[in-house]
Amino acid sequence: MLVNKVEQDVILLAHGDGGRLTHELVTGLFLRYLGNRVLGELTDAAALPVGEGRMAVTTDSFVIDPPFFPGGDIGKLAVCGTINDLAVSGAEPHYLTVAFLIEEGFSLADLERVVASMAETCREAGIQVVAGDTKVVGRGHLDKIFINTTGVGVIAPGTDLGYHRLAPGDLILVNGNMGDHGMAVLAAREGFGFADQVVSDCAALNRITGHLLAELGPGVRLMRDLTRGGLATAAKEIAVTAGVDIWLSESAIPVGPVVRGAAEMLGVDPLYLANEGKFLTVIAPEKADQALALLRDHELGREARIIGEVRSGEGNVYLKTALGGTKYLDLLAGAPLPRIC
Amino acid sequence: MLVNKVEQDVILLAHGDGGRLTHELVTGLFLRYLGNRVLGELTDAAALPVGEGRMAVTTDSFVIDPPFFPGGDIGKLAVCGTINDLAVSGAEPHYLTVAFLIEEGFSLADLERVVASMAETCREAGIQVVAGDTKVVGRGHLDKIFINTTGVGVIAPGTDLGYHRLAPGDLILVNGNMGDHGMAVLAAREGFGFADQVVSDCAALNRITGHLLAELGPGVRLMRDLTRGGLATAAKEIAVTAGVDIWLSESAIPVGPVVRGAAEMLGVDPLYLANEGKFLTVIAPEKADQALALLRDHELGREARIIGEVRSGEGNVYLKTALGGTKYLDLLAGAPLPRIC
Repeated sequence: MLVNKVEQDVILLAHGDGGRLTHELVTGLFLRYLGNRVLGELTDAAALPVGEGRMAVTTDSFVIDPPFFPGGDIGKLAVCGTINDLAVSGAEPHYLTVAFLIEEGFSLADLERVVASMAETCREAGIQVVAGDTKVVGRGHLDKIFINTTGVGVIAPGTDLGYHRLAPGDLILVNGNMGDHGMAVLAAREGFGFADQVVSDCAALNRITGHLLAELGPGVRLMRDLTRGGLATAAKEIAVTAGVDIWLSESAIPVGPVVRGAAEMLGVDPLYLANEGKFLTVIAPEKADQALALLRDHELGREARIIGEVRSGEGNVYLKTALGGTKYLDLLAGAPLPRIC
Repeated sequence: MLVNKVEQDVILLAHGDGGRLTHELVTGLFLRYLGNRVLGELTDAAALPVGEGRMAVTTDSFVIDPPFFPGGDIGKLAVCGTINDLAVSGAEPHYLTVAFLIEEGFSLADLERVVASMAETCREAGIQVVAGDTKVVGRGHLDKIFINTTGVGVIAPGTDLGYHRLAPGDLILVNGNMGDHGMAVLAAREGFGFADQVVSDCAALNRITGHLLAELGPGVRLMRDLTRGGLATAAKEIAVTAGVDIWLSESAIPVGPVVRGAAEMLGVDPLYLANEGKFLTVIAPEKADQALALLRDHELGREARIIGEVRSGEGNVYLKTALGGTKYLDLLAGAPLPRIC
């Protein structure tokens, strides 16, 4: 579903939300000019030939507002987000570059909190910062602080994850509750009364994904982290790119009680809310029970569930609702929550 | 000269200008938390072990204002800037990641100009974009467009550039006129009458540096691009880090007539103005004439000159003035020109 043209004249917030307009911008502009075999694969991290193995590279900017939120901050997020793109690509993260964009007048104590948080997250995840850059712009030309991180990892020989490996009957798992990060940031930003009850799931996933790959090998078909656009958007992208249908069971998808209640009250769908410590994995049917047990055995997978399956089809995502109906899930349209990551 | 503490309470524009406060921020905060053997070397690109050879990685954000200027635009600059960091590290640039940060309402026609310019620059330099990211933030939360690029290159076996290779008697060369980029951007931003007569030198240096390395091998001791802070700042950093003195001859340093005149009028020093297609190289004395000829043979080196030499010392940079005096050059203090790259 490559788009050949961007329809709008100016950039809209929705061009950055990970939904339909983002897709249009990426395929209709960026790929049109900058496309090549590696970039065209539109995976979470580019796999590059190097010596005997393959190197994985990914880049991500973080503009989250507010920069400090329950469960994390922009520094922790910037490390975890890029580690997770490498992790779900089957790579072991090795190196990180960090580029700070800072507004004149930003507090140095806050910057130190952010940097200390990055350092702790890097240590826990076993990744090293190897290059950096700092730019400062005048007051009002940037909102507080933005961080870009680029990650380099190594994909072990024999690891083969990708859309081409999906087959009807494969099962779909997630490692825990959906929507915690999106709801935590929304509540912190808007000052909602329940803000202290929702904590971002921001976490580095490389240990749990590495464990899964080491134990199940080719039984793992594909992994995806569930950031901007949430589970629904990721499922739709997988279905379209792999040329399969995905059937999800609403009652099987784990959502915490506070997020569920808040989402109903606010009229947002937790399946479209961002996560920063959750991933979806597609597993060969005969390995699914073992995968579930492995995930649950890890502290980041206690609430893991099998939530659906792959069927032959043409790129559609269906949600079997708790009431017995079937809902069609599409890419996110519009911009429900900008600056979520 | 590692600093253990950042003295200020808030971020100042000068924390981003490449001078003393930037140095304080990098060593007193970033290195204190994120430091390791690779990052601590503070080179233009990190050299990482991979398979048989070494991989070079560097990251840079571009916040230039205005995004279009005589001789280039933020897209061309973002590609050249990162390629040049790899090039002066002795690496052949292979891969680039690109992350766009865009303000809501930015014109798509302008974005397309930027992307097309990046594509052309990548093609000419022989580098591929392999991963990307786009974030859009609301109006007023970012000024128009910022771009981060991270580059990955390969350092050929046997290439050994670095501060440790400097020896008294080594000669210092530059490949052309100083200050064109800084003055072009200043003139375009302020609408000076001479704005149409100054053109940024923005260019990818990997061909000319590659040629130099291939021909002179270990005769090339060190290379540095001359961006934020210009020639004077780079010379001071080299002198301090290598523990040598550097003597420069003012009359030998090439500065174009329009930049020279404008700099005098405005009271700025061209030696502190940013360049985006210029580099300094330290060459073994017996190879200096050959290096000069090689540089002049290349279209980006027609105005190359031998401008000074390395002497034993303790980290000072001296400028022998045209009038026979000696001036002491230090790191840039203050923020003469923010958002230059």
